[in-house]
Amino acid sequence: MSADPPGLVIVYTGDGKGKTTAALGIAVRALGRKHPVAVVQFVKGLRTTGERLFAEGVPGLDFLTLGEGFTSRGDRAVHEAAARAAWAKARELLAAGRHRLIVLDELTHAINPGWISCEEVLAALAARPRTTTVVVTGRYAPLDLLEAADLVTEMRNVKHPYARGVRAIPGVDL
Amino acid sequence: MSADPPGLVIVYTGDGKGKTTAALGIAVRALGRKHPVAVVQFVKGLRTTGERLFAEGVPGLDFLTLGEGFTSRGDRAVHEAAARAAWAKARELLAAGRHRLIVLDELTHAINPGWISCEEVLAALAARPRTTTVVVTGRYAPLDLLEAADLVTEMRNVKHPYARGVRAIPGVDL
Repeated sequence: MSADPPGLVIVYTGDGKGKTTAALGIAVRALGRKHPVAVVQFVKGLRTTGERLFAEGVPGLDFLTLGEGFTSRGDRAVHEAAARAAWAKARELLAAGRHRLIVLDELTHAINPGWISCEEVLAALAARPRTTTVVVTGRYAPLDLLEAADLVTEMRNVKHPYARGVRAIPGVDL
Repeated sequence: MSADPPGLVIVYTGDGKGKTTAALGIAVRALGRKHPVAVVQFVKGLRTTGERLFAEGVPGLDFLTLGEGFTSRGDRAVHEAAARAAWAKARELLAAGRHRLIVLDELTHAINPGWISCEEVLAALAARPRTTTVVVTGRYAPLDLLEAADLVTEMRNVKHPYARGVRAIPGVDL
């Protein structure tokens, strides 16, 4: 038995900004504690992001952008295949126990269209090593996932600059 | 005139987990873009946190924990003096323009008891260099601050493990 506290399943959902962002913040805390971290991004593969650029120089952080970009662009079959490949990798990481923190970024956007089964996700979470914390982000988190989670925060949009035409800003939004 | 986009005032408030955490995530994005970052923590001074440990090794990140710990502990006059000193430093950083991102972590907890005037904060935000993004975190953000902000997310607590007796976990919560 390890003296380390058991890991949590954390879900950041809702229509507001700050879900992926908060997951990155937990990664910072974990890295500060020398805990190995993996981030699997399910739908952000095509963009250059600040977080990806940052990850390149950070030891202990495995940053995997396996998705094929947001689904408004391109062929759905391509997105589905990419999401399934990302999940196969994530499931392997969950089982391996090398990372103390695993972020499954935008996973809900791969569950909700039926590309990945929620049951499979719950089974992989239940079978993970006891000290592994998993953070799942994305809108419309399925109820079964919320029930399985230890901590759920809804990021609620109160005011958003996109509403007045401001575009995503590098270093802030991506 | 710079071609850089104007900075935003971002507020993360609400009773849910993820406010400071999301601010740290924006710091990751900014650092990935090579933007200098300052984090001023108003009420977390006494604790060793994962984020502070992380910051020690990161170039371009100035991490200032000037508060005196959470106000449930110790003398309020000490907290007030520490918060005022933190604000004096923050105001200086806002005016100086050396940082592209400035996080004022838990600032609302220094405004709400009257230690720092909200008017002063709004004036300093209004006078900052146009490309500086400022993130303010903390519960019960004052209405005037929400009105001045470009982006406001309420982190709403849906489910919290502390309710069933789980304690804060190093590398996750701190």
